[in-house]
Amino acid sequence: MQKPAKYEQAIKTKYPEQVVIAIAKDKKGKANPVTLGWTMTASGEPPMMAIAVAKTHYSIKTIRHSKCFTIAFPSSDMAEAALFFGSKSGRDTDKFAEFDCKIEPAQKIDSVLLSDAVANFECTLEWQKAAGDHIIFVGKVVACHVNTKRKKRLYTVGSGHKMGSFS
Amino acid sequence: MQKPAKYEQAIKTKYPEQVVIAIAKDKKGKANPVTLGWTMTASGEPPMMAIAVAKTHYSIKTIRHSKCFTIAFPSSDMAEAALFFGSKSGRDTDKFAEFDCKIEPAQKIDSVLLSDAVANFECTLEWQKAAGDHIIFVGKVVACHVNTKRKKRLYTVGSGHKMGSFS
Repeated sequence: MQKPAKYEQAIKTKYPEQVVIAIAKDKKGKANPVTLGWTMTASGEPPMMAIAVAKTHYSIKTIRHSKCFTIAFPSSDMAEAALFFGSKSGRDTDKFAEFDCKIEPAQKIDSVLLSDAVANFECTLEWQKAAGDHIIFVGKVVACHVNTKRKKRLYTVGSGHKMGSFS
Repeated sequence: MQKPAKYEQAIKTKYPEQVVIAIAKDKKGKANPVTLGWTMTASGEPPMMAIAVAKTHYSIKTIRHSKCFTIAFPSSDMAEAALFFGSKSGRDTDKFAEFDCKIEPAQKIDSVLLSDAVANFECTLEWQKAAGDHIIFVGKVVACHVNTKRKKRLYTVGSGHKMGSFS
C-alpha cells in the first residue's frame, strides 16, 4: 500500500545507485574526474550514455570545452577515489595529482581512462540540455575498454555516500 | 589494466541495473506500464527524473499524449510483473487487465500508481529529446508515495533480464 511522502523521503528508496566517474579535460589540459550517480544508457544503436551534472560543477566547463568525456565504471575497491573525486572541485584541485589513481590515455578522444575501473567508455558530446539545477550531457560511445581482471561495480548503497557492491 | 572491448561486451559490466516501471495513459484512457532500466535522477531542485524509451515503443505515444507519467520503483517481489510489462506491447495488450498487479489512482496527474512498489513518483513532462534510437523524457516530480512496508528495489542483475535485489 502507498502513502504520500515528501520527495526527500521517497527518493531515499532509490539505493543502491550505480556510481560512474566522468572525466573531461579543461582548457589547460588538466583531466578532471567527477563522481556521479545520475547516469543512464540513452541509446543502443548508436550506443549513447547520459549523465546529469550539477550546473555549479566545474565539470560542466570541462565537458563543454572538450566536447568529449570518459565514463568510467569504478570498481568496488575504488570507493575512496570516488569519494575524493566527488567531494573536491576541479576549480582549485588537480584531483589526479592529489589522489593516487592509475590513469592511461584514451584512444579516440582527448581524455584519460581509469586503469582499475571495471570498464571505460569514450564518449563524444552529442548534445546537452538543462534539467532544473543540472545539465544533461548525452555522449556517443566511440571506444570501450574493460578490465583484464573480473571486478565488481561500485554502488552508493545508502544516504551519506555509503558505498559498496552487490554481494 | 584496461583492454579494448566491443560495446556489447563492455556494457555487460553495467549490471546490476535498477528497474523502474513508467506508466502513462493513452488517448483511450488505458494506463500503459513499461519496464525500463535506462533512467536517472536529473535535478534536485526542482526534483526531476529522466527515462530513455525506445522510439518504437508504444509508451512514446502514451507519454506524448498524457504529458505526464508515473515512475514506480518495483519491489524485489515484482520481477514477474516487470518482465511482463517489459515484454508486451501496449499497442495490442491491456497490460493491467492481463497481469494481476494492484494499482491505485495518482493524486496530481492523470495516471496510476503501483500499490506494491517501493515508491511512486508522479511526473509532469518537462521536455523530451531524441538520443539515437531512444527518446529521453524528463519529468518534474509533483507528488511522491512510498510503500507502508519496507521493501527492496528490483534490479536487473545480469544479461537476459535476470532479476534480483541487493542482499
